Amino acid sequence: MKIGIVGVSGYGGSELLRLCVGHPAFEIAYVGGDSTAGQALEQRFPALAGHAAGKLVIEPFAPEKISGIDLLFASLPTGKSRAPLARVAKGIRIVDVGGDHRFVEGWTYGLTELPGQRDKIRGAARIANPGCYPAAALLALVPLLKEGLIEPEGIVIDAKSGVTGTGRGGASDFGYAETNEDLFAYGLESHPHVPEMEQALAQVAGRKSTVAFTPHLVPMTRGILATCYARPASPADAKRLYAAAQACYRGEPFIKLVPADQGRSAHTGWATGSNLAFLSYAVNARTGLVVALGAIDNLGKGAAAQAVQNANLMTGQPETAGLAGLPLWP
Amino acid sequence: MKIGIVGVSGYGGSELLRLCVGHPAFEIAYVGGDSTAGQALEQRFPALAGHAAGKLVIEPFAPEKISGIDLLFASLPTGKSRAPLARVAKGIRIVDVGGDHRFVEGWTYGLTELPGQRDKIRGAARIANPGCYPAAALLALVPLLKEGLIEPEGIVIDAKSGVTGTGRGGASDFGYAETNEDLFAYGLESHPHVPEMEQALAQVAGRKSTVAFTPHLVPMTRGILATCYARPASPADAKRLYAAAQACYRGEPFIKLVPADQGRSAHTGWATGSNLAFLSYAVNARTGLVVALGAIDNLGKGAAAQAVQNANLMTGQPETAGLAGLPLWP
Amino acid sequence: MKIGIVGVSGYGGSELLRLCVGHPAFEIAYVGGDSTAGQALEQRFPALAGHAAGKLVIEPFAPEKISGIDLLFASLPTGKSRAPLARVAKGIRIVDVGGDHRFVEGWTYGLTELPGQRDKIRGAARIANPGCYPAAALLALVPLLKEGLIEPEGIVIDAKSGVTGTGRGGASDFGYAETNEDLFAYGLESHPHVPEMEQALAQVAGRKSTVAFTPHLVPMTRGILATCYARPASPADAKRLYAAAQACYRGEPFIKLVPADQGRSAHTGWATGSNLAFLSYAVNARTGLVVALGAIDNLGKGAAAQAVQNANLMTGQPETAGLAGLPLWP
Amino acid sequence: MKIGIVGVSGYGGSELLRLCVGHPAFEIAYVGGDSTAGQALEQRFPALAGHAAGKLVIEPFAPEKISGIDLLFASLPTGKSRAPLARVAKGIRIVDVGGDHRFVEGWTYGLTELPGQRDKIRGAARIANPGCYPAAALLALVPLLKEGLIEPEGIVIDAKSGVTGTGRGGASDFGYAETNEDLFAYGLESHPHVPEMEQALAQVAGRKSTVAFTPHLVPMTRGILATCYARPASPADAKRLYAAAQACYRGEPFIKLVPADQGRSAHTGWATGSNLAFLSYAVNARTGLVVALGAIDNLGKGAAAQAVQNANLMTGQPETAGLAGLPLWP
Repeated sequence: MKIGIVGVSGYGGSELLRLCVGHPAFEIAYVGGDSTAGQALEQRFPALAGHAAGKLVIEPFAPEKISGIDLLFASLPTGKSRAPLARVAKGIRIVDVGGDHRFVEGWTYGLTELPGQRDKIRGAARIANPGCYPAAALLALVPLLKEGLIEPEGIVIDAKSGVTGTGRGGASDFGYAETNEDLFAYGLESHPHVPEMEQALAQVAGRKSTVAFTPHLVPMTRGILATCYARPASPADAKRLYAAAQACYRGEPFIKLVPADQGRSAHTGWATGSNLAFLSYAVNARTGLVVALGAIDNLGKGAAAQAVQNANLMTGQPETAGLAGLPLWP
Repeated sequence: MKIGIVGVSGYGGSELLRLCVGHPAFEIAYVGGDSTAGQALEQRFPALAGHAAGKLVIEPFAPEKISGIDLLFASLPTGKSRAPLARVAKGIRIVDVGGDHRFVEGWTYGLTELPGQRDKIRGAARIANPGCYPAAALLALVPLLKEGLIEPEGIVIDAKSGVTGTGRGGASDFGYAETNEDLFAYGLESHPHVPEMEQALAQVAGRKSTVAFTPHLVPMTRGILATCYARPASPADAKRLYAAAQACYRGEPFIKLVPADQGRSAHTGWATGSNLAFLSYAVNARTGLVVALGAIDNLGKGAAAQAVQNANLMTGQPETAGLAGLPLWP
Repeated sequence: MKIGIVGVSGYGGSELLRLCVGHPAFEIAYVGGDSTAGQALEQRFPALAGHAAGKLVIEPFAPEKISGIDLLFASLPTGKSRAPLARVAKGIRIVDVGGDHRFVEGWTYGLTELPGQRDKIRGAARIANPGCYPAAALLALVPLLKEGLIEPEGIVIDAKSGVTGTGRGGASDFGYAETNEDLFAYGLESHPHVPEMEQALAQVAGRKSTVAFTPHLVPMTRGILATCYARPASPADAKRLYAAAQACYRGEPFIKLVPADQGRSAHTGWATGSNLAFLSYAVNARTGLVVALGAIDNLGKGAAAQAVQNANLMTGQPETAGLAGLPLWP
Repeated sequence: MKIGIVGVSGYGGSELLRLCVGHPAFEIAYVGGDSTAGQALEQRFPALAGHAAGKLVIEPFAPEKISGIDLLFASLPTGKSRAPLARVAKGIRIVDVGGDHRFVEGWTYGLTELPGQRDKIRGAARIANPGCYPAAALLALVPLLKEGLIEPEGIVIDAKSGVTGTGRGGASDFGYAETNEDLFAYGLESHPHVPEMEQALAQVAGRKSTVAFTPHLVPMTRGILATCYARPASPADAKRLYAAAQACYRGEPFIKLVPADQGRSAHTGWATGSNLAFLSYAVNARTGLVVALGAIDNLGKGAAAQAVQNANLMTGQPETAGLAGLPLWP
């Protein structure tokens, strides 16, 4: 199966490249990217020297001209994929890792573990991969909403991301010296991921959902932790929350539940380089609020690995093909 | 004015040492610490070689024997200061940076900027310094509660701390390789700082307060950010919140308000090595929740610098003596 | 092929576990480790929950009792493997990642790319894996010595390592706060890796070699860079050095040469999680000294991945089995 | 005494600002910088809100128009200060932290602790501050050359710097994700600091000196460690080396010797935010090479703090004015 990657020089594109090089069924036949066009991949990724893929030359992104591949991964900055991807040949499947097609007509939302979503993805030709923050938060919250254990309105999602969440284009704003040993919230006024989260939550809840979302930038390269607070529909019990997640994710290969009553909860560092999501649940003793935590690698389940999972489903591969490796630790 | 520091080898004690060496009126006359007893200070702190203070020998902590000082800073692990500090001579003023005397009879709570607190500190002989998390959260929330702008119950305090917040005794659990590139929540079941926060908030609000507190460990050395979410008493307005903080902290030398509508909010990295607290306010558009942010250096306003501020008040020094230096950046 | 890992909870052991779980021919049938004995692997490594290997229980290390495996990886602290490994059944092949058997009679030195070493490893039952510092330095220096381009005496090896090089037992000395934002040299008087390097260099040179070795601790989790300075046998030329390395490593799947005249040289970050070694060469214009650089992942080519490469050779697997994945970047 | 700072938004300029705000005799009367011209200082440095200095507006750098100050600190990128500084009024003293005037006629080299240099600085109106790498290396090597203990030719200086050494202009090349967890050498072909080092070493030695200099980028914000290797003039002895440094630096307030035979040597983290230099000496047992180590804060002794020390001398202040604070640790 021949695949292509456009935006291959960004953080998400680089991770797609790594996963596709290691994929048993994918052969990389096209790589595109405007800022690095003309370079051989091995120039950009010295580890590829000697690999067949290393000789591929990064092409300027000309969507009409792409041919000879079955599936295209697009990892472009938000706002940059809608127009060009409309010009890609219909016969080429697309997984858009960027933000332009989420909850857009004709595109299927690609968070595989959402109830009922897997089958829609299997039959789809156009997948909009979830945002990295939504992936972490939705996976934690959905089981609770599905069973009506929490109120869908007024959910607080306090999320923390490593620096690659900003995209490589933003690197100049996130110099090492400025970012190291610093921590701050941003997007207090608005964030493009909010409608995506509210829409997905509302679909599961069957009614309107509102979220107060605060993203934070943390001095680390990879990882997102979403700490979510919700009002219980009736007085909550941590075991009941955990059981809801167990029921929701039974058999899911990439979801790992971490019982919070054993002295530890989901760590981002447990997911590095993988498609795993770690989820924990607690009830706050003082307020009765439900606390749901989701930890992922923002470039893994939050981007490239989720995209490969979707591509596997779309092309009839085993769902875990190319994604079975353990996370890197430490 | 002669002062002493017990627990001088811990993170908080080391920062007290730095601030006291640079203080225009304090002369360090006693240093104590069990784990490093017998070492000269310059052995432990190579930068002190050549300083008069460098020749001081760290003494085993024998509280009854301490004499010849006017004030003792105690920076001991929680649970380790109550018994020994009771045996310190009455004539020696004490600032306890540890957690054993907060809201304990006979001890004054040492968060200087709380309404009415400064005068109590001036006359006190025994000060319980605030916890690092409470310092960040209370400074952000208090102006809003004081003016009745938020509900005191059901406040969410999602707080993130650098590693020195754990204390040096915990260093073995927080090896570099385990902590770097990782992020997690802890204390989901309970945390000793919760009663401290609820008590202080209730005093300001004039009625019961409850908080859902979730601390997180962030891979950085210093810094705490408290992101607080509260229900507004009536529909909130960011300008009104900001005005309340302005009114509450008018003339305060260590409080810096950062208007969130200018595209940035409080950064922990702006406070490194200082007694400053940066505060920002927003109203979440989707839920109407009030978002209040407080960023400090956990070893500064969250521990040692706040302790020096208290000591200045207790001993009639200018409140900013020894604390006027700018933060280290970057 | 059934394999075992003893010392599975250390940094090296954890990386062996990751590589063996992903290996196409290895089945993990035994895991041992004294400090964590009794725990299931999935307790220690949450990502293993759901894997068959996750159910394995870490056994106290009783070498006589080990059976039913073809090969044992030992990743124990230096000084802790000699006695117990002598009691492992003769029929079980051993790769000792620790330092006790290097240049010891009956053990084959396991740096595969050394001239002539591959064949010795193929036939061996007992392999002493190279130290992490020697792996980086030897790979850089050997091609130059082999062709007589540098003098084997008086070589300076200035090496820099991430924190996992110290081993997990040392984590308590390397707390995050102490290690972050710090850099220092250690072992100025002596280091156990020196005889290993001198012996290997002398074998290649055919005469005595002496090295001035200075290791440094760098605030990062993984990675070693060895910057080596040697006197040229006759006036040196960077192209000639590069050509020597090309000739020496032709066809080697894990060695990547980075021409230093194109504005960049070997980065440790290019090797993370892989068995790759990046090598660069230059001639210093002012002194004529040869500069040879080797960059590896200390847990990869410097420990676990090199061990798997050796195990592949010993057991007749393809040499790259389980090691073909690209490094993690960023 | 009124002073000005041009290049105030860079890393060096920011540190100059911090030191000058805390200086007992300096009043900041001018700040300049092209990229941030028009901003008030408190916009750029939120900690300055409320300070008198915070109201100063950053002016576009027009050297002819500067007046009303006694001394100007210039912290501009290399190549950007020569032309404009020639147009500053003669009556204004200048300390150029940048690289354009080192060993240039009419400018005095401002490494205060070089033998005989202090008196030259006292009488000078134009000071060229040393480069950050040279400061670390020269302080370590000079005592040995002065006493003829090492050969001045063929000295290896393997130096490691935190990221602020690259200057803020380079921040876009040193994004957090690219720099964290990576380590590499650069400038293998040539580096502008080499002539500066060779010239200063030759002056002390009284004859030609050549150095092989290899700088490395280390994932930390501040700090430089220079590990220097030199051939002994006659068989060396560590105590003798140490005694030479003691003799050379007797009474120097900013030089701290760390005896390497007590199990530790100079750490960069001991100098953070200060003007201190830590020096250690050893003799390599295998090769007889002398190893000299110098650790500084590249923005402290390597830039801004050294500049303030020079300004103190030039203006008749106590040499340690504004520089007596202890380093920040941890």
